[in-house]
Amino acid sequence: MNNPLPFNKVRIDDQFWGPRINMNAKHTVRSQHEQLVHTGRLPAFGLDWKPGTEPVPHTFWDSDVAKWVEGACYTTSVTPDAEIEAMVDEAVNLIVSAQQPDGYLNVFYTVVEPENRWTNLRDCHELYCAGHLIEAAVAHFRATGKRDFLDAMCRYADYIDSVFGTEPGKKRGYCGHPELELALVKLYEATDNERYLRMSEYFVEEHGQQPYYFDVEAIARGEEIPCAPSRYDYAQANVPVREQTIVAGHAVRAMYFYSGAADIAGIRQDSGLYAVLSRLLNQLVTKRMYVTGGIGSSASNEGFTTDYDLPNQTAYAETCAAIGLIFWCQRMLRYDLDTQYADVMERALFNGAISGISLSGDKYFYENPLESNGKHHRVDWFGCACCPSNVMRLIASLGGYVYSHTDTDAIVHLYVQSEAEIELGGTTIRLRQETSFPWEDSVALTVRCDQPAHFGLTLRIPGWCDDAAIKVNGNAIDAAVARKGYIRIEREWRNGDLVEMTLPMRAKRVYAHPEVSQDTGKVALQRGPIVYCLEETDNPTQRHRILLPDDTILASSYEEHLLGGVVTIKADALCTDDTGWDGTLYRNAPPSLNQCRIKAVPYYAWDNRAPGWMCVWVNRACE
Amino acid sequence: MNNPLPFNKVRIDDQFWGPRINMNAKHTVRSQHEQLVHTGRLPAFGLDWKPGTEPVPHTFWDSDVAKWVEGACYTTSVTPDAEIEAMVDEAVNLIVSAQQPDGYLNVFYTVVEPENRWTNLRDCHELYCAGHLIEAAVAHFRATGKRDFLDAMCRYADYIDSVFGTEPGKKRGYCGHPELELALVKLYEATDNERYLRMSEYFVEEHGQQPYYFDVEAIARGEEIPCAPSRYDYAQANVPVREQTIVAGHAVRAMYFYSGAADIAGIRQDSGLYAVLSRLLNQLVTKRMYVTGGIGSSASNEGFTTDYDLPNQTAYAETCAAIGLIFWCQRMLRYDLDTQYADVMERALFNGAISGISLSGDKYFYENPLESNGKHHRVDWFGCACCPSNVMRLIASLGGYVYSHTDTDAIVHLYVQSEAEIELGGTTIRLRQETSFPWEDSVALTVRCDQPAHFGLTLRIPGWCDDAAIKVNGNAIDAAVARKGYIRIEREWRNGDLVEMTLPMRAKRVYAHPEVSQDTGKVALQRGPIVYCLEETDNPTQRHRILLPDDTILASSYEEHLLGGVVTIKADALCTDDTGWDGTLYRNAPPSLNQCRIKAVPYYAWDNRAPGWMCVWVNRACE
Repeated sequence: MNNPLPFNKVRIDDQFWGPRINMNAKHTVRSQHEQLVHTGRLPAFGLDWKPGTEPVPHTFWDSDVAKWVEGACYTTSVTPDAEIEAMVDEAVNLIVSAQQPDGYLNVFYTVVEPENRWTNLRDCHELYCAGHLIEAAVAHFRATGKRDFLDAMCRYADYIDSVFGTEPGKKRGYCGHPELELALVKLYEATDNERYLRMSEYFVEEHGQQPYYFDVEAIARGEEIPCAPSRYDYAQANVPVREQTIVAGHAVRAMYFYSGAADIAGIRQDSGLYAVLSRLLNQLVTKRMYVTGGIGSSASNEGFTTDYDLPNQTAYAETCAAIGLIFWCQRMLRYDLDTQYADVMERALFNGAISGISLSGDKYFYENPLESNGKHHRVDWFGCACCPSNVMRLIASLGGYVYSHTDTDAIVHLYVQSEAEIELGGTTIRLRQETSFPWEDSVALTVRCDQPAHFGLTLRIPGWCDDAAIKVNGNAIDAAVARKGYIRIEREWRNGDLVEMTLPMRAKRVYAHPEVSQDTGKVALQRGPIVYCLEETDNPTQRHRILLPDDTILASSYEEHLLGGVVTIKADALCTDDTGWDGTLYRNAPPSLNQCRIKAVPYYAWDNRAPGWMCVWVNRACE
Repeated sequence: MNNPLPFNKVRIDDQFWGPRINMNAKHTVRSQHEQLVHTGRLPAFGLDWKPGTEPVPHTFWDSDVAKWVEGACYTTSVTPDAEIEAMVDEAVNLIVSAQQPDGYLNVFYTVVEPENRWTNLRDCHELYCAGHLIEAAVAHFRATGKRDFLDAMCRYADYIDSVFGTEPGKKRGYCGHPELELALVKLYEATDNERYLRMSEYFVEEHGQQPYYFDVEAIARGEEIPCAPSRYDYAQANVPVREQTIVAGHAVRAMYFYSGAADIAGIRQDSGLYAVLSRLLNQLVTKRMYVTGGIGSSASNEGFTTDYDLPNQTAYAETCAAIGLIFWCQRMLRYDLDTQYADVMERALFNGAISGISLSGDKYFYENPLESNGKHHRVDWFGCACCPSNVMRLIASLGGYVYSHTDTDAIVHLYVQSEAEIELGGTTIRLRQETSFPWEDSVALTVRCDQPAHFGLTLRIPGWCDDAAIKVNGNAIDAAVARKGYIRIEREWRNGDLVEMTLPMRAKRVYAHPEVSQDTGKVALQRGPIVYCLEETDNPTQRHRILLPDDTILASSYEEHLLGGVVTIKADALCTDDTGWDGTLYRNAPPSLNQCRIKAVPYYAWDNRAPGWMCVWVNRACE
């Protein structure tokens, strides 16, 4: 198993992510803090809510604050900022002060419904909030070295362990919204206390066991059971994880659950569980994923519907779900270096995840549809505000997705101009990566080491790239020897050794599987990992009147002053003509066609200019 | 102005309508009666409902019974049936017995909310029910010569006249669901009492006048005003009829309203009102009508949305709305013989109206979508049961849409094998029409008259027919002399004179205006007036996997034993292939294509076999 390089060992200084990371650290983290204060979420940890007063703390409020603390710790780890650090410490003190003598820590169930603690795990996010608090505590410890929050959360976890488990007298419960599973692994890794790993295993394995805990607790509440079958799927609790074959239900819950399970599979080197997860991810990626890496077709369950059902305008594709998919893929990569996971991770990262935040760093999409009639726009905040802090913590910790390592290998997953300090057994080497990815196709990697060092430099060749070229100190390497998309160059590396990669990224047409009815007769555009869309402001007519022939040239060019600097794609296309239709709604001749020129911009950057329609999938002009 | 020939002067004996009319008269009318008894609608006229008992009579129940009486009277006029006639008389006696001393007749406001009479015209269908009772009474009078129901309804109308009008002390109200307007014209025509025509004019003209009556009565109920603007559009009451420019709101309400207005325009020879209605109908037909003649895109308002918004799978296209469109077009034709009206009437009749009833004559569509995923099916009855009796009365009275006449002209609008007895001034002639329309393209009309008669025989050349040929006694007539699609042959006609028409009806592709986003890249099939659809049971793959090239031959053939005997259309098409997609959801090459053979059946006949998907619009294979 390889381990992601801690993101604070990576200094990113490129033109794509650098400005995002800076915006995130300087502006986003502050504006989100304002929202947490303004909406009452952070003050609620003061436990001074009184019945009859507004706002009433919500069951999921704790998680919003916790994810902000986590993300803020990530930003200050990379971009020190005394003001943010003080805000974090103040928030942490307030959070820890809300802990009860028995270790319990949950605002809602302390001040609003203290009598109902642990009575509705299915719906009420109680252990979900615990998970986010634990992730925050681990982040705080790693960023500051301070143990107070971490210790408090260990006490909370210990208390949870005393309540839940298979031992006699314990509740065999688990949360309707997975999250604690992966958080406990982080707590285990931060503390080396295997108790937390075993707790995570318990929660992962208990999902879907009979009798259903959601029924057990519903009976205890005096409710009728069973609840609708979809309610079990919704929380990945219809059957135990090892029997699951379809990624179904609520998309974010599914991603968090499988991420936690993947942690277990990796740490325990559990090939059986890994195989289950690999099949599940394959099913998801080959049948239920948007071309943007968005997942979850339907708003009604915030999740999955059926295979190949990928409506564009009504796509839910929650920002958090794309982020959760990145989490899962990263964990699968730890077990098995296979670019199919990295390809999905990259697809979601460069498209359906960062589409969730505006270029201004303070407006958010919850839903990331692939088509809009012009009425879908980012907003400042949400009543259910999971997405803003999620995208903030993702961007802040980006370095952790770029590299990983083993004792013998330095592994590069993503191409991002950066400098990384990598531990290989007892030796520390540095890698300097220079590139203008994702806009340009060349990458130069320079090894920095005080002494020659023998190790494998393992480089990903992205799945979208057919004809990668690699040279070591000017000598070509045969890229065909790559295994599952990763090419390993083992040698004695010397200071200044240079690896040059070319990953040609021509703009290409993308077609969907013929079973995807919503994309029949349509084509999308992609260049490297970037999926494109057409926006009203760049195009000559309505989206349904544009027809893109299969064979016109796709001309890419970098536009420095557009949308923070992007490569756009222009092409000759056709558009339908009104001529001869006066007073006719139907006729026996098809519309005649005119020439037009279309322009596509990266999907992630849409809705940052004049509001208008948008579409990823464009009608084809021919068969 | 021409007048429709009373349908009981037309004997239809063709292979298309004949079986429908028989099924309607023998089976449909009986099964609907059972439903009216079973659901409590008919017994409710006994006025013996007691508070606290179920079912509670609904505000629109009276109309369901009334439309059944009307339709049953039509069926017995054409197909005498003593049992039905006895059922009608029994129902009529019960209805009349419910009339109050002041002439009022409404079950709901007599037994459920007697204190609320005339307090909510906007929502509660009170005058709408009165309209249907009046239509029923006129039908009963015409079918039986009995005056009791007619006289009762005259008393009701007189009472309504005493309540509503512009005179001091009267309420300036009108119904939120138009219908009374056209019913009062029928009452006027049956009684020659111009009072009822003036009442109709009042209701037509009062719609949309300020202050809005819906506001006046809402204030009286103690409610806040104004209500949502869409609520006025919904009932065609946003502005007075003469200022209206867009057919909007609830589709059935709109059709009934404009039908009533067209009656007034025709009878009063009001060219201004006619011009308004002509523009409205043109706007509807050229911007908001499905190719099936269905209208009303949206379920949310059971009506219209915006120009060119014609979603197929979610089309509302209520059966009653298509029927209402037929009513309106027929009335426009009375004023001006223009085949644009007859074309729409024919389109709705042969497609979106009769699709509303199963071939078995006892299952109904309320909504008539143009695409189905296999889950939309006809049912026995509806809680809101307007459609079944509407389609029943339409089919029973079909003869009235085939012919009309003036003192000098016999006019043929539709081609249906039949025999008609037509009054021309003082002379009666008969026309014998022989045809296998809509499956075959030849029509033979033979004049029968005791003495030679000088008159114009005016024949419609359908808009879908480019190359009609007409011969009189073997001599060709130049079809190009037709005016607005009607060719008039004036001469001294002798017994046995033969007019032979050929109306070539090749299967043709139909394309929608390029602004109809839902039909972009799609094509429909039509042959003569019949619009076709693909059904799952006849086709080799899913509908989204079929691509029809623009140039393959459309082969029509009559299949005697299919769906009661229909012409089907077969064509070579392409279908997308899964080959090479294993494990791939997106790729850079489009799906490859295989040859396939598709088969289309008439839209009206869909969902009469194995349940499955259906689509009218098929993907095109090329530009």
